[in-house]
Amino acid sequence: MSASPLLKDAMARIAADVASMFDALLPVPTDPRARLMEAMRYAVLGGGKRLRPLLLTAVADMYRVDRAAALRAGIAIESIHVYSLVHDDLPCMDNDAMRHGKPTAHLAFDEATAVLAGDALHDFAFEVLADTATSSDPFTRAELILTLATASGSNGMAGGQMMDIVAETSQFDLPTITRLQQLKTGALLGASVEMGAILGKVPVEGRAHLRGYARDIGLAFQIADDLLDYEGDEAAAGKALRKDAAAGKQTFVSLLGPDRAREQARMLVEQAVAHLASHGQEADLLRDIARYIVERDH
Amino acid sequence: MSASPLLKDAMARIAADVASMFDALLPVPTDPRARLMEAMRYAVLGGGKRLRPLLLTAVADMYRVDRAAALRAGIAIESIHVYSLVHDDLPCMDNDAMRHGKPTAHLAFDEATAVLAGDALHDFAFEVLADTATSSDPFTRAELILTLATASGSNGMAGGQMMDIVAETSQFDLPTITRLQQLKTGALLGASVEMGAILGKVPVEGRAHLRGYARDIGLAFQIADDLLDYEGDEAAAGKALRKDAAAGKQTFVSLLGPDRAREQARMLVEQAVAHLASHGQEADLLRDIARYIVERDH
Repeated sequence: MSASPLLKDAMARIAADVASMFDALLPVPTDPRARLMEAMRYAVLGGGKRLRPLLLTAVADMYRVDRAAALRAGIAIESIHVYSLVHDDLPCMDNDAMRHGKPTAHLAFDEATAVLAGDALHDFAFEVLADTATSSDPFTRAELILTLATASGSNGMAGGQMMDIVAETSQFDLPTITRLQQLKTGALLGASVEMGAILGKVPVEGRAHLRGYARDIGLAFQIADDLLDYEGDEAAAGKALRKDAAAGKQTFVSLLGPDRAREQARMLVEQAVAHLASHGQEADLLRDIARYIVERDH
Repeated sequence: MSASPLLKDAMARIAADVASMFDALLPVPTDPRARLMEAMRYAVLGGGKRLRPLLLTAVADMYRVDRAAALRAGIAIESIHVYSLVHDDLPCMDNDAMRHGKPTAHLAFDEATAVLAGDALHDFAFEVLADTATSSDPFTRAELILTLATASGSNGMAGGQMMDIVAETSQFDLPTITRLQQLKTGALLGASVEMGAILGKVPVEGRAHLRGYARDIGLAFQIADDLLDYEGDEAAAGKALRKDAAAGKQTFVSLLGPDRAREQARMLVEQAVAHLASHGQEADLLRDIARYIVERDH
């Protein structure tokens, strides 16, 4: 663990804020829908690093965005992330039994409830963003929604997951694996940064350096994930590891070898930090997040 | 078949417009995501009455909304409807093999692809609504999105589907079955009417009669569905019937008997039409839709 004090504080704060906001926004009704909300709460309150809300609020803070508005947008992107994990863990997808050290949603509940809870969290993300409480400005709301829906759908995360399924029976080369990961993981990480900039009213032409930062940390994050999958500890990860190798699936580690992969991740982090050169200490948290991404142990 | 000439024309027109717009908006890319888009296209181009876009455009026409803007909103609500069918048909849900007379998506492709195609259509709906082409006015876009996300999520369709799963192991009474159906089917039919009114800039206080109309036809639609399930023809329906009875699930027909159920549906249609009394012939299509809903044979 190598998080800076600044990052440690920010991670603890976002974890507490995200948990209390999910708790407040997802009450359990006293009707037969209770099981659905219990499954949604189980999934969103189950832990996780809250990296996407952290990135979103870190960027928003640089532009002095109201914390409550940034947090609501962070809740939306975390809902999308969690719904995708719930569906990804299903028997017909990755068939995973553990997530954050607990049974996955379809085992804690049942498959049908897990499908529905994922679907309902998917809607919940857009409900939160479309609600007037997220931002008083409807232009901003519409831009946030378009950014998130695009990052999540067939031209983003879902497209990357489809490529990931195809990868099980195809031999992808490095450019194709890079594209797969940019969609599967990078799109949502990029949307986190972008949504912070949208809330900060940064004009599109002023976002290029933030997009560069997001692209680089997105790829570095995935290479670090592949390294953790290759040499990490299952207890620290809270989930099964070494599944890609068992499935014969190409990863950055299988294509580059662990040493070159590690070097590549470090280079991407330096590049990500370099994109922030025009910023002073207000970007220190983003710099620390970039370094943490390749040094984390889970 | 008892559609009026007015309704027949409108149904043929919306079917053609919806199909050509889906075709244009969902091109198949020449990369490994192709299979995802093929599954999305298979599901959305597979037929269906297009009742939700029909309702939306019928209301929008009453208020002289631009046809292209109304159609895009109709595409969004149809995407939500179709995604829910794809997930509903999954083995862990209703385990259905036929839909619109064709193999369901998870049989035509595979389960993982069907889950992802549903998820991607879910996003696609919000992408379409958030896009500036849907409406040049961001207030309207945000209101459309909030209406659709609410109707689709845990307080709407997904909540109703959860109740439907619980119904398999519980004995629900008539008020609970009514609530279940208002969520499962009624919420999205209601959103269709509401979104037409939003595009038509009808103020909230001027929508009460349209909401009453939508509530009544939503319930009538479900009773008619239960009657078709009870006494209909599988070939005309293009799907398996009499599954509720086999599962011992309560329906309007099991609770009321077929005669009282039919009478109730007819009464609801009269009530729906009465809500439109303040309108002249511009509401004739809505009146014809209400009557068709209980007289259709599939």
